[in-house]
Amino acid sequence: MYDVYAVREDFPVLKEVVYLDSTATTQTPIPAVEAMVEYFYRYAGNHGRGAHRLARETTNRYEDARETVASFLNADPSKTVFTKNTTDGINLVANSYPWEAGDHIVTTMLEHHSNLLPWLRLQKKGVNVTVVSPDRKGIIDPQMIENALTDRTKLIAITQVSNVFGSIQNIKRTTKIARRNGVKTLIDGAQSAGHMPVDLKDLECDFFATAGHKGLLGPQGTGVLYIRQPEILESASLGGGTVSDVSGLSYTLEPSPACFEAGTPNIPGVIGLGRAVEYVEKIGVSEIEKHEAKLSGEAAKRLSELEHVEVYGPENRAGIVPFNVKGLHAHDVALILDQTRKICVRSGHHCAIPITRFLEVDSTVRASFALYNTEEEVDILVNAVNALKALVS
Amino acid sequence: MYDVYAVREDFPVLKEVVYLDSTATTQTPIPAVEAMVEYFYRYAGNHGRGAHRLARETTNRYEDARETVASFLNADPSKTVFTKNTTDGINLVANSYPWEAGDHIVTTMLEHHSNLLPWLRLQKKGVNVTVVSPDRKGIIDPQMIENALTDRTKLIAITQVSNVFGSIQNIKRTTKIARRNGVKTLIDGAQSAGHMPVDLKDLECDFFATAGHKGLLGPQGTGVLYIRQPEILESASLGGGTVSDVSGLSYTLEPSPACFEAGTPNIPGVIGLGRAVEYVEKIGVSEIEKHEAKLSGEAAKRLSELEHVEVYGPENRAGIVPFNVKGLHAHDVALILDQTRKICVRSGHHCAIPITRFLEVDSTVRASFALYNTEEEVDILVNAVNALKALVS
Repeated sequence: MYDVYAVREDFPVLKEVVYLDSTATTQTPIPAVEAMVEYFYRYAGNHGRGAHRLARETTNRYEDARETVASFLNADPSKTVFTKNTTDGINLVANSYPWEAGDHIVTTMLEHHSNLLPWLRLQKKGVNVTVVSPDRKGIIDPQMIENALTDRTKLIAITQVSNVFGSIQNIKRTTKIARRNGVKTLIDGAQSAGHMPVDLKDLECDFFATAGHKGLLGPQGTGVLYIRQPEILESASLGGGTVSDVSGLSYTLEPSPACFEAGTPNIPGVIGLGRAVEYVEKIGVSEIEKHEAKLSGEAAKRLSELEHVEVYGPENRAGIVPFNVKGLHAHDVALILDQTRKICVRSGHHCAIPITRFLEVDSTVRASFALYNTEEEVDILVNAVNALKALVS
Repeated sequence: MYDVYAVREDFPVLKEVVYLDSTATTQTPIPAVEAMVEYFYRYAGNHGRGAHRLARETTNRYEDARETVASFLNADPSKTVFTKNTTDGINLVANSYPWEAGDHIVTTMLEHHSNLLPWLRLQKKGVNVTVVSPDRKGIIDPQMIENALTDRTKLIAITQVSNVFGSIQNIKRTTKIARRNGVKTLIDGAQSAGHMPVDLKDLECDFFATAGHKGLLGPQGTGVLYIRQPEILESASLGGGTVSDVSGLSYTLEPSPACFEAGTPNIPGVIGLGRAVEYVEKIGVSEIEKHEAKLSGEAAKRLSELEHVEVYGPENRAGIVPFNVKGLHAHDVALILDQTRKICVRSGHHCAIPITRFLEVDSTVRASFALYNTEEEVDILVNAVNALKALVS
């Protein structure tokens, strides 16, 4: 197991707060920030747009980052597209796939709005959407997905890890069902990549969208979209870098990934992301997974032993622990934890209103754990939540 | 006039090269990079997504940057949307406006692909596109635009400054024509904002798209889109942060700008951009405009005096000087300038194939000047191009 205290030295803000909001965004390690600063001060140029030394160095470093990220996910670099965030990747698929009226999409009530609204919006084009419900612990039964398929179903869109429950879905079984039925799959990997091993060749999904600024430890403003068959999409965003020729009123698109990255990309962000992924690789994603599961399992167990606390989600969970303190609003709990102990947790519906209502609440408090959190921080959280008892009894 | 040598101290890479490619991307000043580093090391959180101190500080800084940028362009912050780049902003409009078959768009042959392809793509929805030609110097006659209008014309899309010629278009007259005819206007401000005063209330356009990483001196991966009437667009990209409610299969969108910024934004980039715009403001955009025009005017004049050189564009130009050396390919010229004198210029079609072909060439060399360039650098360029005579005679 890696030395968590040594790792913490690479994240300066952790000296100031108890940071338990890595599901919203992780912190970015010093080496990744330094890679961005090096870009700005030593060789900043535009990507793929010039013959001079700065443009060449920039292009090389950007494409090196693509190879690093693709290799980390076991994907082909030519099918690995840099996006702005997970949402951007999912919308790219929703807006670029050749939908026809009457087509059908299956998604789930567990989804973050970003893996729900892009599909609901397609209803305006005559696409039908079925939303499958999970059980009370936030687990989707793949059989329920199979039952929802029709002969017009084109896509199953499902999250790998729920950002509300921390529940881990059976993606392998889902993609198997999809392939057997000739249906494509989009996996929302926002809460899985970097937190657990993700092997895209093994998962056999058609699309995998994730963020740079979560488990991959990169900066905000970066994301990754894997597209198994780029030729079936026609990018809905065109411009600089996406075309090989323009003649009169017609044009010819570049092959993937160029056709999906219109305009000047987030070059410093991608270079920082590449360095961050190297950082994750060096620590080892399986070690990170074990560490986070240990902390979240411990926190969930101890919080659920408190009489005034309700904890949600399954026993085996990723590093996400949602709960409520009976008689207190989630926002008040978050504010008090911040003000009394500098504990940063999130509160609200976590951009997932349907599943939050499914729990018959309007919000939850969410503590989430990353590779840099410690058992002492679990203690601080549990003790602080325990102390809230005085406010509710 | 400001002290250009003092300014150069804020751009470390300028000590290493003669950087004449600011039309592709400017360099970013140290204070903007330091603002990003401060974010990562001191208060990184997610925007608008949490009650804790890091999320609040992040949200405040991000929204401060929006006010800075909006004020700089004389726009309302609620109509000022952060995008990934100019291309992203233009595609947002193209994909979010309620086009109907038979609608008509007028654009120009001068445009960068990013202000051409999003409109050509709409032909698939039955939208018609007319492309107006400029004169040989790269100037569009607004009367030609008016002549192209039909009773189905919905939009005029035109650049303020040509990235190929450096020619400055008469936008005020164009928006006046548009308003008189009940037509909306989209201005591509990629090469104007930060290089010359831009007052959006005075310009009276409907949409203005620009980049963060050009005249505004911000990092790559940032852009700005001004939308005069946000209510006429329905964002084509939905997800986290864009909705106020989701119920069953329907949803309610947030007002602008939230509904147009789906998912976690490029927070460090926007914070860096805000700081960069303060930097531009402090120097003064009118001073910058004069400085750049002086350098490009001088370079164009002296280059055109060389017998083996052809210079394109009008006499009054922004900081952009395109040229060719007779008998040498533009890419070879760029490579030689880099290898012999570390001069960074761009060569190619500059993402504007139609207008490059209009010049009856397949590429040009483009030297471009920003606030940090000097007269000595003009000398170095002219002398190096002069020396190429030996290769062609």
